[in-house]
Amino acid sequence: MKKILVANRGEIALRIMRSAKEMGIKTVAVFSEADRNSLHVRYADEAICIGPAASNQSYLVGSKIIDACQQTGAEAIHPGYGFLSENPAFAQQVKAAGLTLIGPSPEAMEIMGNKLSAKAAALKYDIPMVPGTEEAITNVEEAKARAVEVGFPILIKAAAGGGGKGMRIVNTVSDFEEQMKLAVSEATSAFGDGAVFIERYVTSPRHIEIQVLGDTHGNIVHLFERECSVQRRHQKVVEEAPSSVLTPEIREKMGKCAVDVARSVNYVGAGTVEFILDENLDFFFLEMNTRLQVEHPVTEMITGLDLVKEQIKIARGEAISFKQEDLKINGHSIELRVYAEDPLNNFLPDIGTLQTYQTPKGNGVRVDDGFEQGMEIPIYYDPMIAKLVTHGKDRTEAIDRMIRAILEYDITGIQTTLGFGKFVMQHPAFVSGQFDTHFVSKYFTADSLKTEDEQEALIAAISAVMLLQEQKTAAQPLSTSATQKSNWVKNRKAY
Amino acid sequence: MKKILVANRGEIALRIMRSAKEMGIKTVAVFSEADRNSLHVRYADEAICIGPAASNQSYLVGSKIIDACQQTGAEAIHPGYGFLSENPAFAQQVKAAGLTLIGPSPEAMEIMGNKLSAKAAALKYDIPMVPGTEEAITNVEEAKARAVEVGFPILIKAAAGGGGKGMRIVNTVSDFEEQMKLAVSEATSAFGDGAVFIERYVTSPRHIEIQVLGDTHGNIVHLFERECSVQRRHQKVVEEAPSSVLTPEIREKMGKCAVDVARSVNYVGAGTVEFILDENLDFFFLEMNTRLQVEHPVTEMITGLDLVKEQIKIARGEAISFKQEDLKINGHSIELRVYAEDPLNNFLPDIGTLQTYQTPKGNGVRVDDGFEQGMEIPIYYDPMIAKLVTHGKDRTEAIDRMIRAILEYDITGIQTTLGFGKFVMQHPAFVSGQFDTHFVSKYFTADSLKTEDEQEALIAAISAVMLLQEQKTAAQPLSTSATQKSNWVKNRKAY
Repeated sequence: MKKILVANRGEIALRIMRSAKEMGIKTVAVFSEADRNSLHVRYADEAICIGPAASNQSYLVGSKIIDACQQTGAEAIHPGYGFLSENPAFAQQVKAAGLTLIGPSPEAMEIMGNKLSAKAAALKYDIPMVPGTEEAITNVEEAKARAVEVGFPILIKAAAGGGGKGMRIVNTVSDFEEQMKLAVSEATSAFGDGAVFIERYVTSPRHIEIQVLGDTHGNIVHLFERECSVQRRHQKVVEEAPSSVLTPEIREKMGKCAVDVARSVNYVGAGTVEFILDENLDFFFLEMNTRLQVEHPVTEMITGLDLVKEQIKIARGEAISFKQEDLKINGHSIELRVYAEDPLNNFLPDIGTLQTYQTPKGNGVRVDDGFEQGMEIPIYYDPMIAKLVTHGKDRTEAIDRMIRAILEYDITGIQTTLGFGKFVMQHPAFVSGQFDTHFVSKYFTADSLKTEDEQEALIAAISAVMLLQEQKTAAQPLSTSATQKSNWVKNRKAY
Repeated sequence: MKKILVANRGEIALRIMRSAKEMGIKTVAVFSEADRNSLHVRYADEAICIGPAASNQSYLVGSKIIDACQQTGAEAIHPGYGFLSENPAFAQQVKAAGLTLIGPSPEAMEIMGNKLSAKAAALKYDIPMVPGTEEAITNVEEAKARAVEVGFPILIKAAAGGGGKGMRIVNTVSDFEEQMKLAVSEATSAFGDGAVFIERYVTSPRHIEIQVLGDTHGNIVHLFERECSVQRRHQKVVEEAPSSVLTPEIREKMGKCAVDVARSVNYVGAGTVEFILDENLDFFFLEMNTRLQVEHPVTEMITGLDLVKEQIKIARGEAISFKQEDLKINGHSIELRVYAEDPLNNFLPDIGTLQTYQTPKGNGVRVDDGFEQGMEIPIYYDPMIAKLVTHGKDRTEAIDRMIRAILEYDITGIQTTLGFGKFVMQHPAFVSGQFDTHFVSKYFTADSLKTEDEQEALIAAISAVMLLQEQKTAAQPLSTSATQKSNWVKNRKAY
């Protein structure tokens, strides 16, 4: 493999090209007309324009990508994340064109791309699923009986659904019938199909995912977890590895499950198995992402591996060069996604020109970005400016370093999530490690980005409440470590 | 310790302030009139001008530093490296003023600052010294007898000497008398003292040093070695950790010796014990540096420790929080000192304005610098622009990453050592790990910085010669790993 085409843009295109360069592999960039002056275009050995700004006329057009390969003699395609990265039809086209896709088989993508087939594949192994109906249901009595079995609160969701339509949280059995009827009627009018699923509603969920690597020789390993519970608009914004709540036992069990999920589709390449973790530290399979994740750097920091290099080596047919037992967690890493968005305006994109753009440096700080001072954040794509990653010997150092790096990061001309990131790093719930996916809605308000002095007073007040809470619960007996952690989670909900 | 004054400038001042910021400690910068717009001045919480550009009117004036502390309420001083960092009189003044110097005691500095007293201290332990006369000598017959005992080649050097004056390398006993007389006469005319030392001349020396940390509770640990053999003008320019030639046994022995040297002066703080390693992998004590070294980041990369934080914690009276056996080498790290010098003009400083200045980023790349685009490199101080540090899972990855980072580093307006660094990373002697302190004089010529294509041809030619050499020596029996390595070193001398 002498030349790779990177079918992506921005930071991930640059990040892939850096690894290729270190391996002595030439790179081809593709770019839309809006990205003509982008850093990834300059960085590549060759670059080809593939059409207008709109993704569906450029980055999403598989045939243009394949043409660009043929034109430049690139033998393989790295799709990055987003765009065509999880598109089985594209994967099939690439294969048919005699090219290599640096990623899993079209079949694995296909199965994992659909929640039902993914669940069916995973069920071949003993993978825990959120308790609930296995099939879509319309009969109210039947549904109610199942809901009672599962236990309240439960979630009713449209089988054909999406975007929250036909979705209902039901807290008690007495509310069930009415809510079920509403859900069915909403689903019928929205999707023409009134069938629903019933499942346990996890009130305080954490989003935890496991990075896996599989090769063409049947080896599959996991690279531990990433904690991705701090989300805004249902999208991750702060990730870390390892998670502050997993015990070594749960980590091992979750890792084994992730490897089994990958094995259920003979997975080849880098993939991520996502789980939901509840208040009792029980976890359930959510889905598998069949690509490199945005947040992969935190895994690189704690394992010392270069995931893009591993992907390329696997695509070349090499066997993974290490065994599960060789892997150790080294320190702690946190990633903050620096988006061009306004946290005070519901995190909506805030595009414009980077008037000032100076990135932080020094020990334990990594910035993966695709911009420089004076550049514009285009309106056509995801508004991520950079991924700010820190690594420390422990979680405290990784947090301290993140705060230092945020203070050093100088961006003007655009609203960003930097200030929000500082708020997260300084928030007692995050510092204590006791938070869930509701972090933003629970704690983040317009006051959260107030000045240092104002914030210090606020943090002192929250800390005082937490201390009171701790004192109240200190008298309670604690049995195992898991129970203890679970109690912390429960107590946290009170403030 | 709430506020620290950093008595230095440039990258090291910034580097220290970053760690202080992560620890929640306020910083005070001092600056000369030439450094008014420097980054370290902007980064600090407070900044005080301490005089004109000339170091001896600013950064070297201890009383001005102490005044600045008193003016700002800083309780401690971090001296960085160079300037006042190894000045026992200054350390004494700081103590007398009731302030804390983040560094060792004035007594330890004093003893290690003088080669004879350092040697005397180290001799309390079983530290290997370069074989030779223990005292200065003038009698030719006596000297000759000692030279024969030590074995040729030997080095004659003036007891009062420095700068190579009165220094002679003697290869055979028959040359001894004449060379000794010349050395004595040169020493007499240069220093008014004809006495000389005789010691073994190591023909293929490697410069290897061990990082140590000592606390006020009597704990001393070492943080493994740094290989610093690639030097120009007798100054380090490329460093790495670990060394590619040390066996675990020699590493352990050398580490123990370094801890003993530190113990001989009850060392407190971060220090470095320098050794010379010969062709047989025997090592000898050279000297101890009683400060943070320029090249300390490579140790941070492989240990995950922050040495400045360790220094500060030790200065606060804390015990070192880990034991020798807790430390492990994690991967491999290389540092290139990016100097404003012209490699083709004997590495003489090439000052001017940084017309373009863009630093590399991404996985495993760290840049410690003190400049930004448009700034001038002042003529008054050391012309180092930055330290470019890479970390990889092994030496090959650290080298590949360094080449990638050098290619990404964009500096115009000034000659730098970046191209030289690339030459080193691609040179077969460096790649194979078989080199010594003569690397630059042996291999670096005006042709070394030719274009990629020209260089590739050159490297191919050198590799072919190395291969021939290997084939020639392949038939020779190899006993231990040390002998084997030693043979490689000897063979290397042939090309």
